[in-house]
Amino acid sequence: MSLPEPQAVAPPREEGAQFLAEIRDQPHALLRLLEHEADYARVAALARERRVSVVRMVGHGSSDNAASYGVYAFGLAPHWTALRDSISLSVHYGTKLDMSGMTAIGLSQSGRTPDVVKYLEQAGHNGAFTVALTNDTDSELAAVAQAVLPLAAGAEHAVAATKTYLNQVAALGLLASHAAGKGRRFATGIRLVAEELGELIPEQERRVVPVASAFAFTGRMFVIGRGPEFATAREIALKLLETTRVAAEPLTATDLAHGPVAALDPLFPVWAIASDDECLASVVEGAERAREAGATLIASGSAADAIEDAAYRLPLPNLESRLLGPLLSVVPGQLFAWALARARGLDPDRPRGLSKVTLAR
Amino acid sequence: MSLPEPQAVAPPREEGAQFLAEIRDQPHALLRLLEHEADYARVAALARERRVSVVRMVGHGSSDNAASYGVYAFGLAPHWTALRDSISLSVHYGTKLDMSGMTAIGLSQSGRTPDVVKYLEQAGHNGAFTVALTNDTDSELAAVAQAVLPLAAGAEHAVAATKTYLNQVAALGLLASHAAGKGRRFATGIRLVAEELGELIPEQERRVVPVASAFAFTGRMFVIGRGPEFATAREIALKLLETTRVAAEPLTATDLAHGPVAALDPLFPVWAIASDDECLASVVEGAERAREAGATLIASGSAADAIEDAAYRLPLPNLESRLLGPLLSVVPGQLFAWALARARGLDPDRPRGLSKVTLAR
Repeated sequence: MSLPEPQAVAPPREEGAQFLAEIRDQPHALLRLLEHEADYARVAALARERRVSVVRMVGHGSSDNAASYGVYAFGLAPHWTALRDSISLSVHYGTKLDMSGMTAIGLSQSGRTPDVVKYLEQAGHNGAFTVALTNDTDSELAAVAQAVLPLAAGAEHAVAATKTYLNQVAALGLLASHAAGKGRRFATGIRLVAEELGELIPEQERRVVPVASAFAFTGRMFVIGRGPEFATAREIALKLLETTRVAAEPLTATDLAHGPVAALDPLFPVWAIASDDECLASVVEGAERAREAGATLIASGSAADAIEDAAYRLPLPNLESRLLGPLLSVVPGQLFAWALARARGLDPDRPRGLSKVTLAR
Repeated sequence: MSLPEPQAVAPPREEGAQFLAEIRDQPHALLRLLEHEADYARVAALARERRVSVVRMVGHGSSDNAASYGVYAFGLAPHWTALRDSISLSVHYGTKLDMSGMTAIGLSQSGRTPDVVKYLEQAGHNGAFTVALTNDTDSELAAVAQAVLPLAAGAEHAVAATKTYLNQVAALGLLASHAAGKGRRFATGIRLVAEELGELIPEQERRVVPVASAFAFTGRMFVIGRGPEFATAREIALKLLETTRVAAEPLTATDLAHGPVAALDPLFPVWAIASDDECLASVVEGAERAREAGATLIASGSAADAIEDAAYRLPLPNLESRLLGPLLSVVPGQLFAWALARARGLDPDRPRGLSKVTLAR
């Protein structure tokens, strides 16, 4: 009798390696998006030509969070009205809304989210100029749209989206800036962000680990932001829900004061995203209210130093453009989620009960 | 030396008595609103005349939750596009958006919320037809608006709004229905709801107490709904945050599946609002996903029985109108918050760190 043949043993997979690899790929993802800048300029020109200056956006999860940014991108750049539209109104209730004079943008990484596909198809019937923003330009979503914008984030395998979200934000900013005749300048800004991220990501990877370990036993958290950074607050809260199982709820800094502040105590921390812009006073005030309730504060962003009494700070460079800020400010949250999941013994690559493409109604 | 004079001692105040009294007053509040039906018909006629069929709504807290209902009321009744607008875009960033052809509605119980007042003033400068919806028709908000709609909820003393929210929902439904030429019918519906509530409230008061005591040690909860009932989910979650200090987050039934479901476990319960309408399948599916994750389910609404494996059910009568449903379906949540606060030794009349009129930026 002989001994069994030695078998090749796969090296132990590091938990969260995939999620981390995609966070690290983000600067490259942004540069891939820029290869398609001409598409963005063309679609923006079409929208201007057709005078479709009310923008309806739909998507779920991270895509919907990016749409929150879109509200500000279209508002601040071409001064257009943009909204996160109700999918159920069109798809489930079958309401025929007059969408003439409007653009409808469907956001879906896979291009296969069923109700987003149906929504965009109906929006076309209702008179909208329809645009698909997707990683898969051969997808069903692309097939039903009048114009297709490639997200070009590259294959994303981790269930919790990172580079997809970042490219959606950049894509909406680029489209909105081209609609305002400022597209080239925004594209240059994206390039600068990509460079900045190259240094920032390794630095933040080191910084977040001790911060995350302090929150290893936290059950709940609020994440506050305002203006374009409300999208960041939503996305950071979603990453925490997906990967760390913290009950993290995003709130605008002012909505915190209108009720939820009553739930805070020293075991209910608050993450404040503080950027150096016109909404800073509102975020500072929200953070003060949270401190008065005894909550531990984490402050991140270009104006993290403005948050007094923060127990932890994750400062970021100031980009001098309100619409570029969210491309940096989500990164500390992504990395915090990665580090906190590991501190809690969870695998951020394998959130329970989730799959990459969600087909829920 | 004589003994001190005996002093009058106030009878011990029952905790939550004020909050409960205002919940009980809701049928009367609805009838008070109906006394002003002519104002709603008049403003709807003005809006039709001016063809201002894109509706921007702003408000904080409960008022913003009512605006979520408004999206569906204007969508389903006159088939108008309605949105919860960004206040910061106009007020903090000073963006001049073209609001011609649009109605802007400012929602504020007191009529004194500073950024809502500023928003409405600017909306008028930007070309919108501006409407104030407020309890105080002599307030600053009323003063800056082109038209004023009395909320007529009556004096509200509890910090956590109940009858104000219900009247805001009814008011937006009434305005939207009049815009669709169906106002009389909706008014009749409100009258029926008021009658129904007269019986329902005492019954639900009894029902919620044992349910609430089962959740006395719960730290977090999701509240799911979809369509017009997403407003209900948001409002129930807010009542829980304000009065019980549970970290309660509202989600559309489908968004639950797009990430947050990963955070659930047997100690993270989910409240599902199930109404008998076109979104029911989506809510049933969301609740199933929550059950698979081990979460305890509370089901309320006219289709509570459709939620399999619910640990607790708070069924409601079916009103045969999607836009009337939310007037009943918030009540079990309000009463649950009242009962749960007491079960946790908290006073629902005195949420920590809140005051009735919030002047936060």
